Amino acid sequence: MNCYVYGYGPEGAERLIVVDLGVTFPDMDGSPGVDLIFPDISWLADRRDRIDGIFITHAHEDHVGAVGHLWERLGAPVHARAFTAHHARRKMEDQGYSGDSVRTAQPWPETIQAGPFTVGFVPISHSIPESSGLVIDSPAGRVIHTGDFKIDHTPLVGEPFDEALWAEVARPGVQALVCDSTNVFSPHQGRSEATIGPDITRLFAGARGMVVATTFASNVARLKTLAEAAQSAGRSVCLLGRAMRRMVEAGVEAGVLTDFPKVVPPEEAAQIPRENLMLLVTGSQGERRAASAQLAQGKYMGLKMKEGDLFLFSSKTIPGNERGVIRIMNAFSEMGVDVVDDSGGLYHVSGHANRPDLMEMHRITDPKIVIPMHGEHRHLREHARLAQESGRASAIAVNGMMLDLTGATPKVAEYIETGRVYLDGKIQIGALDGIVRDRIRMALNGHVTVTLLIEEDGTPLGDPWCDVKGLSETGRNNVPLVEVLENALGGFLQRAADKVLADDDLLEKDLRIIARRTTENEIGKKPEVTVVISRLE
Amino acid sequence: MNCYVYGYGPEGAERLIVVDLGVTFPDMDGSPGVDLIFPDISWLADRRDRIDGIFITHAHEDHVGAVGHLWERLGAPVHARAFTAHHARRKMEDQGYSGDSVRTAQPWPETIQAGPFTVGFVPISHSIPESSGLVIDSPAGRVIHTGDFKIDHTPLVGEPFDEALWAEVARPGVQALVCDSTNVFSPHQGRSEATIGPDITRLFAGARGMVVATTFASNVARLKTLAEAAQSAGRSVCLLGRAMRRMVEAGVEAGVLTDFPKVVPPEEAAQIPRENLMLLVTGSQGERRAASAQLAQGKYMGLKMKEGDLFLFSSKTIPGNERGVIRIMNAFSEMGVDVVDDSGGLYHVSGHANRPDLMEMHRITDPKIVIPMHGEHRHLREHARLAQESGRASAIAVNGMMLDLTGATPKVAEYIETGRVYLDGKIQIGALDGIVRDRIRMALNGHVTVTLLIEEDGTPLGDPWCDVKGLSETGRNNVPLVEVLENALGGFLQRAADKVLADDDLLEKDLRIIARRTTENEIGKKPEVTVVISRLE
Repeated sequence: MNCYVYGYGPEGAERLIVVDLGVTFPDMDGSPGVDLIFPDISWLADRRDRIDGIFITHAHEDHVGAVGHLWERLGAPVHARAFTAHHARRKMEDQGYSGDSVRTAQPWPETIQAGPFTVGFVPISHSIPESSGLVIDSPAGRVIHTGDFKIDHTPLVGEPFDEALWAEVARPGVQALVCDSTNVFSPHQGRSEATIGPDITRLFAGARGMVVATTFASNVARLKTLAEAAQSAGRSVCLLGRAMRRMVEAGVEAGVLTDFPKVVPPEEAAQIPRENLMLLVTGSQGERRAASAQLAQGKYMGLKMKEGDLFLFSSKTIPGNERGVIRIMNAFSEMGVDVVDDSGGLYHVSGHANRPDLMEMHRITDPKIVIPMHGEHRHLREHARLAQESGRASAIAVNGMMLDLTGATPKVAEYIETGRVYLDGKIQIGALDGIVRDRIRMALNGHVTVTLLIEEDGTPLGDPWCDVKGLSETGRNNVPLVEVLENALGGFLQRAADKVLADDDLLEKDLRIIARRTTENEIGKKPEVTVVISRLE
Repeated sequence: MNCYVYGYGPEGAERLIVVDLGVTFPDMDGSPGVDLIFPDISWLADRRDRIDGIFITHAHEDHVGAVGHLWERLGAPVHARAFTAHHARRKMEDQGYSGDSVRTAQPWPETIQAGPFTVGFVPISHSIPESSGLVIDSPAGRVIHTGDFKIDHTPLVGEPFDEALWAEVARPGVQALVCDSTNVFSPHQGRSEATIGPDITRLFAGARGMVVATTFASNVARLKTLAEAAQSAGRSVCLLGRAMRRMVEAGVEAGVLTDFPKVVPPEEAAQIPRENLMLLVTGSQGERRAASAQLAQGKYMGLKMKEGDLFLFSSKTIPGNERGVIRIMNAFSEMGVDVVDDSGGLYHVSGHANRPDLMEMHRITDPKIVIPMHGEHRHLREHARLAQESGRASAIAVNGMMLDLTGATPKVAEYIETGRVYLDGKIQIGALDGIVRDRIRMALNGHVTVTLLIEEDGTPLGDPWCDVKGLSETGRNNVPLVEVLENALGGFLQRAADKVLADDDLLEKDLRIIARRTTENEIGKKPEVTVVISRLE
């Protein structure tokens, strides 16, 4: 969920540029039912007249995913290289906007003027075509914003890492390097995408049945590695899952995947002998509706896995997704499918720079200041320490922290209120609005509805009615919970003072307390309670 | 959540023994709000007159945790070695039963007669004192049930693995080895608990501030390793967290932890210089209420972490718990605490036998049949394959599968209906009762309450009232969702036929459909709906 802002100018009147507008994904633990998570850009939206441009480093969802949802509140032109721009335009159109605000940028040495900033897109290796680091010049000096990157001289897609180019970019002096930190805890030099092709080819060639492989659809490099391995192993390639097809199509259209092996549609794939087929499918993270999950449940698009087939996770499981991935692995195991994952280290490499590669990037660009980005706090902290060990100034920039990068060392200039916004159905809600909190509480505690009629003279009409949802229907001694609740609430009403009966707020509060206490006593749970009081007039 | 049953006798009248009665733990994804998960023992409870004994292999929760909750439905004597029996008795007493049904067993060569079975507890190395494999003899031959185990000749607690003893046990011939499969995918020989002490001691000795270490409280071997490392590094040991204190006390009481370093209470610890202190705390899995989480949030028991302190996760994160663990790691990182985990492989070893160790166990016991247990389906499948590779018969026993082990190869005799039971507050509910499903739905979709009054003449009294919970209060165009809902439902009632108005079921169904459709149209979510119809009489 990346969103960075650079500013230059007099205090309080800085001109601003935005780098990346990404999304992150919800989970059942903290954001059940939510569709997408955006950065809260209220601070930026309040200053929209000061924004001179939005720059997108590459086409991964955590960098480009919110463009369509948030653009209207910012209004500035969006700059990205062709492949990324293709995706950004589609995001705009998906939300009903024209794609015209997205401008295709040419790579360095061309630059874009945006207010006091001059911005260049410098090709950098990652796992998706046309990934770029940004060179951001202002009168205060040069900042390099790496975006996601790895040092890969044979990346399969996108430009190879070009040390000479980065050295040239750095020659005038770099005030600050704002740098990917994802793999700062990985101690060994990173491996090139090209190193895994042969092992994957051997795996595919040795399989006796159908082969199915999954990875992030947005890992275009891996899609190519897998498809070429299949081709080398004498297997036709079939893409399953909308994201997979869209990404390959986009790559071919944008001219960055011209030599991708020919793919066959699912109908045709069903006619091909199993030992000559590889399916490339969505769902590397165990997503419930993705192609991998569908295949784990049975037939999908006319294709079905069976004993002797092979399923390859050419991916890392993102923390929090393990249960879903394991669920699928076991479903395949039950079918007699051999499941291979990354545990042996042969079939996956990361798209991010490892610790020695980060040190190499520091060395090449030789910045005064290193600002770690992309990672959790522990990654940022470790990366700052790494920078400091080699004598560079550094600071841990947490969400909402504005740093002054103009001096010899970074200084905290201000803290900005920020946070998360949820896309919940069609509506954007604040993460702290309490809406999702109420849903989590209902999931943990269940729900009781209490309905009460009050006559014109202020006396209750009969006992309150109760409905329960997500709670045991019977309590101790097998008495229905609803009966116990209605008795308790009815008893309270008989004793209730007129003052209480006349006051909806007081009455509601007391009924809620009694409903919770009674439920806890009866079944050991303290439910959420909705009280509805109807007064007859 | 282990529960195994062995039977011997005429078909349909077999005498039965139960091995282990464990629990597993709920998660927000699949069982929100649930307290504990038990095996569904209905099949056993229906045959309680045929159960001759319950045997508990060791004192881990997934083996002994359900004894107190399920014993009453089975009624048979519980057999366990002293330390395990201590825990089993406490579980019984926690649920209000006498501990007298738990009988302390002596280790092999002593045996217990239980109907047609003769059962011996053979000491085996794991990570908790007195772990035992069971030797189960019946007229049909000898079965070895390993329980959890590793091959560890210097396990710190519990008896060392004794190859000669197991060879002796196997000498008369083993019909079936029912064997732990947890680590079948770990290719290298397992390491002894004793190998990690020196590295942990070095880590503790080199730390400049306070040291805090966490592991499973039930990993008694690790508690000892950590406490001894602290002692060697000149640090006093303080236990934080109820489970931690209870486990060490139980070990000391049972005489299996006699040489555990002296521990200091928290009040005293607060007076000790930080560089001379180690806290041993609960919460290795990021549990929200454990000591580690409390320390991550601030002061706990008068103790507080600060910059320069060290926190060690001497544990593996169980899949599904990553988010909670990472949350705590980042909270410590924000305090300036150095967090060390198992990623370097120095500070944790598993309590289970790796692949070469499993092969070794097969070799030593030389069974005709190997039945893999303890693991997901993919582990069982791999273990069965491993056994078959060395010429032994094997079968994958999934939950509810009854195998005939009397022949040369295992045969499926029957499938038994089984599953999971949730402890939800104080009540046991079936996992498929729909109660938790309703809670998950409320978490994903939110909840709407619709209340409607109908007059004596059958006409609605005013518009229905709506309450929403866990849904955006306003929809498109900023109109309150409740208003939109009440208008839509009111409109429907005006047009509703008398037949519909007279029939609560029909009316409820229609109101629910309209409430869902309107909410979906307005905010893009399809909520759970409770309809309350009150008829005035």
